[in-house]
Amino acid sequence: MTMTAAIIGGGVIGGGWAARLLLNGWDVALFDPDPQAERKMAEVLDNARHALPMLYDTAMPIEGELRHVKAIADAVADADFIIESVPERLDLKHKVFAEIEASARRDTVIGSSTSGFKPSELQQGAKHPERILVTHPFNPVYLLPVIEVVPSPANSTASVDRTKAVLTGLGLHPLHVRAEIDAHIADRFLEAVWREALWLIKDGIATTQEIDDVIRYGFGLRWAQMGLFETYRIAGGEAGMRHFVEQFGPCLSWPWTKLMDVPELTDELIDQIADQSDAQSGALSIRQLERLRDNNLVAIMRALKGQNAAAGALLNKHQKAMTQPLTSDEGPITVLRRVIPIDWTDYNGHMNESRYGQVYSDAADEIMKLVGADPGYIANGLSYFTVDIRIRFLAEALAGDLIYVESRVLEGKGKKLRIYNEMFRADGTLLSSGEQLLIHVNLETRRACEPADAVRDRLEALAAAHAALPPVKV
Amino acid sequence: MTMTAAIIGGGVIGGGWAARLLLNGWDVALFDPDPQAERKMAEVLDNARHALPMLYDTAMPIEGELRHVKAIADAVADADFIIESVPERLDLKHKVFAEIEASARRDTVIGSSTSGFKPSELQQGAKHPERILVTHPFNPVYLLPVIEVVPSPANSTASVDRTKAVLTGLGLHPLHVRAEIDAHIADRFLEAVWREALWLIKDGIATTQEIDDVIRYGFGLRWAQMGLFETYRIAGGEAGMRHFVEQFGPCLSWPWTKLMDVPELTDELIDQIADQSDAQSGALSIRQLERLRDNNLVAIMRALKGQNAAAGALLNKHQKAMTQPLTSDEGPITVLRRVIPIDWTDYNGHMNESRYGQVYSDAADEIMKLVGADPGYIANGLSYFTVDIRIRFLAEALAGDLIYVESRVLEGKGKKLRIYNEMFRADGTLLSSGEQLLIHVNLETRRACEPADAVRDRLEALAAAHAALPPVKV
Repeated sequence: MTMTAAIIGGGVIGGGWAARLLLNGWDVALFDPDPQAERKMAEVLDNARHALPMLYDTAMPIEGELRHVKAIADAVADADFIIESVPERLDLKHKVFAEIEASARRDTVIGSSTSGFKPSELQQGAKHPERILVTHPFNPVYLLPVIEVVPSPANSTASVDRTKAVLTGLGLHPLHVRAEIDAHIADRFLEAVWREALWLIKDGIATTQEIDDVIRYGFGLRWAQMGLFETYRIAGGEAGMRHFVEQFGPCLSWPWTKLMDVPELTDELIDQIADQSDAQSGALSIRQLERLRDNNLVAIMRALKGQNAAAGALLNKHQKAMTQPLTSDEGPITVLRRVIPIDWTDYNGHMNESRYGQVYSDAADEIMKLVGADPGYIANGLSYFTVDIRIRFLAEALAGDLIYVESRVLEGKGKKLRIYNEMFRADGTLLSSGEQLLIHVNLETRRACEPADAVRDRLEALAAAHAALPPVKV
Repeated sequence: MTMTAAIIGGGVIGGGWAARLLLNGWDVALFDPDPQAERKMAEVLDNARHALPMLYDTAMPIEGELRHVKAIADAVADADFIIESVPERLDLKHKVFAEIEASARRDTVIGSSTSGFKPSELQQGAKHPERILVTHPFNPVYLLPVIEVVPSPANSTASVDRTKAVLTGLGLHPLHVRAEIDAHIADRFLEAVWREALWLIKDGIATTQEIDDVIRYGFGLRWAQMGLFETYRIAGGEAGMRHFVEQFGPCLSWPWTKLMDVPELTDELIDQIADQSDAQSGALSIRQLERLRDNNLVAIMRALKGQNAAAGALLNKHQKAMTQPLTSDEGPITVLRRVIPIDWTDYNGHMNESRYGQVYSDAADEIMKLVGADPGYIANGLSYFTVDIRIRFLAEALAGDLIYVESRVLEGKGKKLRIYNEMFRADGTLLSSGEQLLIHVNLETRRACEPADAVRDRLEALAAAHAALPPVKV
């Protein structure tokens, strides 16, 4: 049965909630008095439809239906789950809760997106305080998985459990915050960082750009995969977490930040941290954690490389500086030398078959560059598209293997480019052979067309030179 | 000509420096009095050799030579670049600098890895203070690209420029810190976060695990790609950065962190932030920034999915809950429905040819599951490997396209499994067809062998059912 959610307040956060719910197959009734609400919601949903389904290697459920309603009562009457995302004013939230309670079923959970208020503050004056709690998501709500679920002692176990089940079903990770506190957990860190950032800018030490760079090229990459304590556990190495905490104890009294209200580093606190870290990560050795960290970093940085963004853009620049241009046109040409990265292997522990195709696709790019069909040529609206490929898999390749590819042009006439590739491990083992047929295309019309004269001439010369080679092996 | 670096101190940081230099083709002379230094260095280098070359789609330079030396003089005499990575004690660092200066060429730059000391402190008592400066890297040094370069007024422009050129050549991003300050820039944030984390643990609000989760499933993902201010610029939306800063101004006096030494949010400071943010990100609209952010998040989260780590492990779990098992064995079977993700497209703006292979590889996995060659079967040491594939590319597919694959078993006898796949866009357009030959293997011997009886029977029945279908189209 299709579930229905009511969203009260359709800004960036409420809109993000609605989008995640809709794309997970829920129907959504949205109330927001802003005359621009429909346009704003459509924009968030547009972003979410672009991004969220891409995360999965399977189709998501059929999208639910969105209704914009004119009153809170219309939104909540039939709702199975209610989200409050109105501005951060306690009096306003209390008013909204009263309106919700007047029309909603009495056991429907009301989750508040508040960043700062405690659930017991939200519950003041409610008819059924046991069903009001904090469900604090992070922008963009349709992508980021963490959500802080903060109950007060007044909440029923049933409402907390139901809330967590609903959120898990939406692909969220409910972090059950066991104690009420202003700003919950995540925003305390964000606020500390924000305060330090204001100091750095005010004192003229760093600009917004410099601060962003130091984060996204540095600890931001670490935190995307292991957070704070597991990262430090690794940094502490064999000496252990207790040693790490003690070692940095003295810094707490140094002016390493302007934020000097620090706790005292007692033995008890050190024990608490070391014990919790053991419980969290103690099943793995430091060496194993290092390998996990590095594999995750490689995967993240390669992902950013594909987008030419952040640390990935730096890698692309360094790679370009490192790459030697192909000079020989005597064949076969060694077009590629590279290492198999960790993100190319599959559950069989070897390079996935599709990555052989990736290597041959990259090899064809090199041949294209060699004959003048380079990035500049492509930017002018002409390129080659592969229309047919045949790959023979002769031996396995593992992550970390150094491989190279030898290519020859079998045919280079008119619109046609036929390439034969052999992939070798560094020790000379033949891993695979492949044959590709590419057709020259106009990128405007997406149809076949003749290449530019210079490219055609160069290609014909290469094909003629390669025709003199001994026949291909496989 | 091969360049030579001297590293004084071979711990986690010095070892990471050495590894990055060696893998970028530098020779390295390492001095560390620790009797375990050679073992520790070998371990760091082992990690670096595994990870760093995987970042590039081209081979790195030939690895340089590592020499362990018995005295600082032996390390630095011929060095083109000197790195100091000894423990964080100013007296010790001064002693090391004096020894370096006694033997090094007088213009060789000495970079200190110090997290906390200011360059003017390091330079006290030096013969040539103009060539001593801070070059503060981040662990793991062989992977993370950011490095803080902090000169004092005593440093020569030449030494700063030479340092930045060397670091850039190593694939690092030198962040030139324009003003000396304790702990430079990045560690000020790390220290603020550390102090807040100690409070949360001491007060019993959160455990190390909960803190790590709230980071890696939340803002850690944002910071890995855009940092703090660009993220908030987007959150502020159309109203702009000035509005965002003002809106959160009141929180500065709220107990949202225990760190209450806050700067005053004057108009001047607000202007400064808004102007710097405009200079940094103003060339793009909020809508454009949102799209970049979301594409980066998708790419990062998919990368973590491939590693089954952090947010990626959550996605895999949610995906599993979302996936309907195949039930029909009447053919052709619709084995896959999915959206083309942003990390599958190439410079032609369409799905890269290798990803057609990825889709067919995934389709074969589904057929395998259907006949009982599922993850449990594979865990028991048996699987199928593809030995030959032929793919015809009939139409382009774009990021965001919903596609599905229809598969039939052409042959399922003994060790052989031959599959024919057709890939369609949701509108029914045939995008590609492909034929694969898989061979059943023993994962221990990596050699062909007969499948288990149950798998063989199921496969033969499927092949028989599919033999009755009309012949394949392409």
